[in-house]
Amino acid sequence: MATVSDITVSAAINSLSALLFLVAFAILRLQPVNDRVYFPKWYLKGIRENPSTSGPLVKKFVNLDFRMYLRFLNWVPAALRMPEPELIDHAGLDSAVYIRIYLLGLKIFVPIAILAFGVLLPVNYTAGNFKDITTNMKDITFGEIDKFSISNVPPASKRLIVHIAMAYVFTFWTCYILYKEYKIVTDMRLHFLASENRRPDQYTVLVRNVPPDPDETVSEHVEHFFIVNHPDQYLVHKVVYNANKLAKMVDKSKDLHNRLTYYSNKYERSNKRPTTKTGFWGLWGKTIDAIDYYTEEIEKLSKEELAERERVIGDPKAVVPAAFVSFKSRWGAAVCAQTQQTRNPTHWLTDWAPEPRDVYWDNLAIPFVELNVRRLIMAVALFGLTFCFMIPIAIVQTLANIESIEKVLPFLKPIIQKDSVKSVIQGFLPGIVLKIFLIVLPMILMEMSKIEGLTAVSALEARSAGKFHLFLLVNVFLGSIITGTALQQLKEFLDQSPSQIPETVGVSIPMKATFFITYIMVDGWAGIAAEILRLVPLVIYHLKNVFLVKTEKDREEAMDPGSLLWPVTEPRLQLYFLLGLVYSTITPILLPFIIVFFAFAYMVFRHQIINVYHQKYESAASFWPDVHRRIIIGLMISQLLLMGLLSTKEAANSTPFLLVLPVLTFWFHRFCKNRFESAFRKFPLQDAMIKDTLEKATEPHLDLKGYLKDAYIHPVFKSADIDIAMELDDEDDFQVVATKRTSRRGSQTATREGSPEDRSGILSV
Amino acid sequence: MATVSDITVSAAINSLSALLFLVAFAILRLQPVNDRVYFPKWYLKGIRENPSTSGPLVKKFVNLDFRMYLRFLNWVPAALRMPEPELIDHAGLDSAVYIRIYLLGLKIFVPIAILAFGVLLPVNYTAGNFKDITTNMKDITFGEIDKFSISNVPPASKRLIVHIAMAYVFTFWTCYILYKEYKIVTDMRLHFLASENRRPDQYTVLVRNVPPDPDETVSEHVEHFFIVNHPDQYLVHKVVYNANKLAKMVDKSKDLHNRLTYYSNKYERSNKRPTTKTGFWGLWGKTIDAIDYYTEEIEKLSKEELAERERVIGDPKAVVPAAFVSFKSRWGAAVCAQTQQTRNPTHWLTDWAPEPRDVYWDNLAIPFVELNVRRLIMAVALFGLTFCFMIPIAIVQTLANIESIEKVLPFLKPIIQKDSVKSVIQGFLPGIVLKIFLIVLPMILMEMSKIEGLTAVSALEARSAGKFHLFLLVNVFLGSIITGTALQQLKEFLDQSPSQIPETVGVSIPMKATFFITYIMVDGWAGIAAEILRLVPLVIYHLKNVFLVKTEKDREEAMDPGSLLWPVTEPRLQLYFLLGLVYSTITPILLPFIIVFFAFAYMVFRHQIINVYHQKYESAASFWPDVHRRIIIGLMISQLLLMGLLSTKEAANSTPFLLVLPVLTFWFHRFCKNRFESAFRKFPLQDAMIKDTLEKATEPHLDLKGYLKDAYIHPVFKSADIDIAMELDDEDDFQVVATKRTSRRGSQTATREGSPEDRSGILSV
Repeated sequence: MATVSDITVSAAINSLSALLFLVAFAILRLQPVNDRVYFPKWYLKGIRENPSTSGPLVKKFVNLDFRMYLRFLNWVPAALRMPEPELIDHAGLDSAVYIRIYLLGLKIFVPIAILAFGVLLPVNYTAGNFKDITTNMKDITFGEIDKFSISNVPPASKRLIVHIAMAYVFTFWTCYILYKEYKIVTDMRLHFLASENRRPDQYTVLVRNVPPDPDETVSEHVEHFFIVNHPDQYLVHKVVYNANKLAKMVDKSKDLHNRLTYYSNKYERSNKRPTTKTGFWGLWGKTIDAIDYYTEEIEKLSKEELAERERVIGDPKAVVPAAFVSFKSRWGAAVCAQTQQTRNPTHWLTDWAPEPRDVYWDNLAIPFVELNVRRLIMAVALFGLTFCFMIPIAIVQTLANIESIEKVLPFLKPIIQKDSVKSVIQGFLPGIVLKIFLIVLPMILMEMSKIEGLTAVSALEARSAGKFHLFLLVNVFLGSIITGTALQQLKEFLDQSPSQIPETVGVSIPMKATFFITYIMVDGWAGIAAEILRLVPLVIYHLKNVFLVKTEKDREEAMDPGSLLWPVTEPRLQLYFLLGLVYSTITPILLPFIIVFFAFAYMVFRHQIINVYHQKYESAASFWPDVHRRIIIGLMISQLLLMGLLSTKEAANSTPFLLVLPVLTFWFHRFCKNRFESAFRKFPLQDAMIKDTLEKATEPHLDLKGYLKDAYIHPVFKSADIDIAMELDDEDDFQVVATKRTSRRGSQTATREGSPEDRSGILSV
Repeated sequence: MATVSDITVSAAINSLSALLFLVAFAILRLQPVNDRVYFPKWYLKGIRENPSTSGPLVKKFVNLDFRMYLRFLNWVPAALRMPEPELIDHAGLDSAVYIRIYLLGLKIFVPIAILAFGVLLPVNYTAGNFKDITTNMKDITFGEIDKFSISNVPPASKRLIVHIAMAYVFTFWTCYILYKEYKIVTDMRLHFLASENRRPDQYTVLVRNVPPDPDETVSEHVEHFFIVNHPDQYLVHKVVYNANKLAKMVDKSKDLHNRLTYYSNKYERSNKRPTTKTGFWGLWGKTIDAIDYYTEEIEKLSKEELAERERVIGDPKAVVPAAFVSFKSRWGAAVCAQTQQTRNPTHWLTDWAPEPRDVYWDNLAIPFVELNVRRLIMAVALFGLTFCFMIPIAIVQTLANIESIEKVLPFLKPIIQKDSVKSVIQGFLPGIVLKIFLIVLPMILMEMSKIEGLTAVSALEARSAGKFHLFLLVNVFLGSIITGTALQQLKEFLDQSPSQIPETVGVSIPMKATFFITYIMVDGWAGIAAEILRLVPLVIYHLKNVFLVKTEKDREEAMDPGSLLWPVTEPRLQLYFLLGLVYSTITPILLPFIIVFFAFAYMVFRHQIINVYHQKYESAASFWPDVHRRIIIGLMISQLLLMGLLSTKEAANSTPFLLVLPVLTFWFHRFCKNRFESAFRKFPLQDAMIKDTLEKATEPHLDLKGYLKDAYIHPVFKSADIDIAMELDDEDDFQVVATKRTSRRGSQTATREGSPEDRSGILSV
């Protein structure tokens, strides 16, 4: 096992790299040329303008005010200064609540750490069991850190009562804080929803699986159904088109325009006609003139796009059996979303419409049975992914333990024994390799969630987060404990009687503390510092700036504020809660590392939220029940592991005392679920009624129908050239209108050819 | 283990006792004096009159038509003759669907048995592994039955592929039948609900946890809330009184009246004043005149009852924070029941009102937090009960195995070795002892469910059934397999290496087949035959007849039709599904016993439903999702056990093939749940609208308010003397009215004193 000096080296390396990132950030963010990378949020809000162009040209790109460099940490107080209500106003409730998770970590772990350092550390250190164990199990080596952990307490010691008592105290404290936080977030959400402006999704319900009707079109069928079954409330509806192919064309068109711009810029600079090749990615094939080629391609695609656009509008088969149905009041929508419409629960499925930006259009048309089959397949795939990924992780984990390598491969001993090599391997490598695995994974999980057929981006993200959390739990946490141990103690395992196995596993939990401390430093400290540096967006922005940007508008487009990446960061964050809870009673020395992580991450993310991230949608903190549940899962795992560990300490008669804890914790979870969760899932009628009444009083002549008309249309039908939008109130006019549109659009395409904005044509039916 | 001759003896004993019960039933049911015991349903329906009193007196009591005795099984065709729609009309949907469970058993197991006998039996029998195993594990004795079971197949045999294939076939067949049945029952339920007459619960929602309001009474608060939040739909509401104390008094009064009647009858017959003692149950204390004593007691209680009645009506504290809120249409009620009313999900909880007979009044007042605490305590209690009950069961199970006793207590050998003693012990005793345990248990479980705070009798019963099912699963099924084995093979367990344990357990599943065959015969065959005999109600009826009955009305009251006892019979029934599914691939010879049980029980229960049982409420088959889920649980257990067994057969590489089955089964369960369950939990708006529209057209001038006024009042306020009922529309009149009532009721009580019907006074607020 790693010794204290290994930990020190690792801490030094990671602190240093974190510091380096911070210094780099401090320098880079002051350069005007990077302004759009580090403060995009303000540009998007229209508050910040391009850095002034007065003065020498160099000032436009490099900040020469050296005094500013001295205060390289001055972003910290700036980040902490903004009060929470303003933050909610500035960045949305999702972001504001998200950083509360870090604060929650501090609230839970700071008192726990103080108590653990005050009580458990002295108890462990003075127990002096260390020698006994080493004589008992000679092949297991302990680091000095174990002197402060429960490993140091001899079996059947009366001191273990202190650990059990602390497990109770920590559990109650965690639950108390969790309850308070749930209450606060619920209130914040309800307040936010109540003070929200009018939004289309408040009046709208997404209806899926409209059953086919031989006599009526989908649109007619929907209208008749809701007129009959919600006679006083039904207002208007909007059918959904299967425009997936069209959306692909629009994407391709955008890509071609980018290429054209690139070559045009190149031509302007070098004054030499650039060439490209016709093959894949321009890597092989016939050499041709690039500008001509792409101009031609764009023209061809525009025609195809136009034809497809007409097909979608004209073809009744392009209408999928789903619709956005709007009601006259929020009350009506709340009623429809929460009730079952027909006997057959697989038809006329109603649910809250996601807000327009949040709709995942590709999945609106999946029928019920297919949805079930997809879910089954994805569940099996997730299982496979979770448990096959263990193999590479296991290999990495083995590297984390020098002694194991030496035992398994003794010929490597001379190289590894060099102190410097040893420290680097122990302190840095395993975390990094693990990290790379984890970067690829979320994309796979997101694709899997998409296949499952959820209809809102927020739901997709929540789902991916759940998958990722399971993955991290199994692979990073359990995998590290069990596999690492397994390889370490493989020889003993095979020699000793099988009934001793649980004991050996129990002993290995505290032994893994040093690995996890390293992990926290690599992933937590250095990782968070890298987050604030935004290296990847920085590089991409400057590349785009050089090759694509011509106008101010292009520059606007090149700016990538990014977003919180909720489905990745939250489950990863949960790992810290889990580690903190597990080791709070076992190896409390790990807690300060976690506290540093939470505090540092809180500052960094608060800064990022204020200055950088731009959330794509607003879910009003609807993710909180997931956060709460996962912390509870962590708490229960910690209780079960402590139980397992204590049973190896010949304190098996403590099991009943510890068994009470998971039962109580689970009950607490159920209680919170009953008490709070519906505020995140349903919209109470009373609140709807209050908002309706208020609206009726303040705006008696509101044209709700007009307001809702264009809210839910597929993004490919939305564009800047709103002037040619046609409003069709009656679907029967389809054919006629489509013809009209063709002629109009024909001329329009010709005039605007070559513009990267050619995604024209609003359509509202 | 039991041999084939043991099984034969057991089968003979049980068949004989079943036959005896049937003959006794055939004789007893023909006696006119027992008519009210065996055909109460017809009396309650008013179709059957007392047997004619013409002819000699003896004919009134004994049937002398000897020809009728010859056809002692003629109830069977009579029971089967009634077509299902008529049965639903006659006995309700609950009963009709309940007996479909037996039919479902036949549908599942008859084809499975045919296939198993055609394929698995020959495969097992010709495998001829028997000798090998006995030489391997000498101490385990096998009966001849095992020649037909999977035990006979040698490890790693290719023949095991047949068993795996059959596991697939059986799973798919079971799921197919389950799906079809779910569909049929759903249709039956929806049809039943659609064709139902107007019922108060269709318009009514039960609102609980009305928050306290300092300025308004509960009644005002409820009214204002619903007028505001359901303005177009709210009609009327009815607050709930805490009349639990009053209900107890009414019960006690009834008991005193019974005693008075008993002594009066005694006095009439013997013409000697009967005496009683003042102590507990009249067993000790001062001797006094019984008639005077009870007359006095009744008078005293009547006064107290009156005072309590007034207190309940007058005291605002007797109003609990719950109410039955009725709406103008079924649509309005459906909306209110399915939606959330306020931000705080622990206030204004709305749910379908149970039908008036189904309300469990005692539990309407429990606040939210207390409800959660109660549930926690009951969950822990259930856990304790389930796992502590194992100890006596384990002792009983040990007795089931002669060889084990001989091994543990060798000095008993000479007694047990006698063939007759041996067969009786093996075949009869264990089942009976188990049975007695199981009779006491449901009452405990029902009390536990009541403490949990459910508000409808049907919900209480469903809950108890769930608990009982868990209990049977753990104790009867798993307990029999594991404990029996553990004691049998304790010596081997301790001697051999622990890694062999799963193997030994796997082997023991087929070994338990004979025990379960015995169990099926005792509990199933003889038990069902005892059910039709109705021995306990028969005795009680005749006792009452002798001691209490004076008038024809008393006789009506003495009649106890009983009901299906759903929370007891259904989980017990599930055990047969479980056994059938588990042993279908392992020891198919068990299947015919199960089929006989299902067929026999189907006939018996069909007869009982037609002639005897009188259901207290009608839930429209709302229990079906539970039935379905439990069969699925049985199916999954069977798959997992087969997997365990095969891994001991050195066919571990078959595990992936078998692992697919539980995954698919679980998915099938989810699919069915999504597809059908909401029909059992929610009331679709479309159906509500159709019924509303129809009603509006056919009965435009319906006085719904009048119809709903008295629907939900506590039963103690309901009585036969409806003539003195007062209708209070306004709660503010309380005090005045209460005074009026006192004077009226004072005189009324005096005139009616001594009648057993003195539960007078309707009250509707």
